[in-house]
Amino acid sequence: MTTPVFTPSFLQDLEHLFVWRRDVRHFCSSPLPDALLNTLLGETCLAPSVGLSEPWRFVLIQSPDRKEAIRQNFIASNARALEGRRGEEAKHYATLKLSGMDEAPHHIAVFCDTNPTQGRGLGRASMPETTVWSAVMAIHTFWLAATARGVGVGWVSILDPESACRTLSITPNWQFLAYLCVGYPKEPARTPELERLGWERRNPARRRWIYR
Amino acid sequence: MTTPVFTPSFLQDLEHLFVWRRDVRHFCSSPLPDALLNTLLGETCLAPSVGLSEPWRFVLIQSPDRKEAIRQNFIASNARALEGRRGEEAKHYATLKLSGMDEAPHHIAVFCDTNPTQGRGLGRASMPETTVWSAVMAIHTFWLAATARGVGVGWVSILDPESACRTLSITPNWQFLAYLCVGYPKEPARTPELERLGWERRNPARRRWIYR
Repeated sequence: MTTPVFTPSFLQDLEHLFVWRRDVRHFCSSPLPDALLNTLLGETCLAPSVGLSEPWRFVLIQSPDRKEAIRQNFIASNARALEGRRGEEAKHYATLKLSGMDEAPHHIAVFCDTNPTQGRGLGRASMPETTVWSAVMAIHTFWLAATARGVGVGWVSILDPESACRTLSITPNWQFLAYLCVGYPKEPARTPELERLGWERRNPARRRWIYR
Repeated sequence: MTTPVFTPSFLQDLEHLFVWRRDVRHFCSSPLPDALLNTLLGETCLAPSVGLSEPWRFVLIQSPDRKEAIRQNFIASNARALEGRRGEEAKHYATLKLSGMDEAPHHIAVFCDTNPTQGRGLGRASMPETTVWSAVMAIHTFWLAATARGVGVGWVSILDPESACRTLSITPNWQFLAYLCVGYPKEPARTPELERLGWERRNPARRRWIYR
């Protein structure tokens, strides 16, 4: 294969992909074809990883009992998150829909093997967190590959990670990173839901860099 | 703007982008146009972030003294990483070029504001690491936006983070994540350099997911 040249049209579409990628919380219940899910997971594994360690691990949850236990985990964690808020902010928080797990047809938990033999430790001696960060970049790769195919992804982080590991019978050397709800979104949107609902808004990119 | 429809041709090019994105350690010394660097940083800020907190912070290093201090940090950290290895592995490790900072025209350090007011703490009560992980996804966004424009990025993680913060006079609430070398690559490559040099190889994606 020769070096690809990416056209101006591709660059514009790539920017649209970044712009339209959303954290989705409203899903249609129709499942993805198996082949599509496999394609997405395959592309995901092209993510960067420290020392080529590929430490990402995906757990596709099929058991209704396990899904229900995760749902209870979310409800309890979200109630605790609400307890820490007061007044108008608490009222506003309580109105937000922060998980699409009741409707999303696919639930994928993402873990990191935090001490992988693959990669032989290269690049992580002084910054061992780079292993987890590699798995995080795989999540982002999945997100983009999915969005490009009209598939929505919602990252639920309002969970107790230890409880999630127990629910999913996960080996102790895997760290829980994310619970992804995956499916076709009810309505694609250009603007983040938290911005549409007045919780927070994007700020100018130019404020994010300085010179030294 | 109406919902974009991504064509099969775009999906194929997006896969090529994932396939050809490399951790670059061999750079041409010619700098990027200012406008291009600004475009890349602007797209980077479209990354996902917990609670829409946008906690990524970029530091563009221009001072030759600071660059030299980071170079010394790398040399010392890499020597320590080598000390932990024995025999053939130590010999092999010593032959690897693990940083392109001597040639790369742009050096960008990436930090995370670990307790941002933006986002009002949403989504991070039970998993506060999601803030750092948001900034990691911004790094990956930068990497992809750069690769699509023929720009190479190399993530140097063989550094002492505390020393890097002192060198760059960074506020204590910013966590050091990455030192990125940025510039035009000497030779684009489809295969990771660590694979070409026999250090490690990619493994089949299918081994990375299980069912529960």
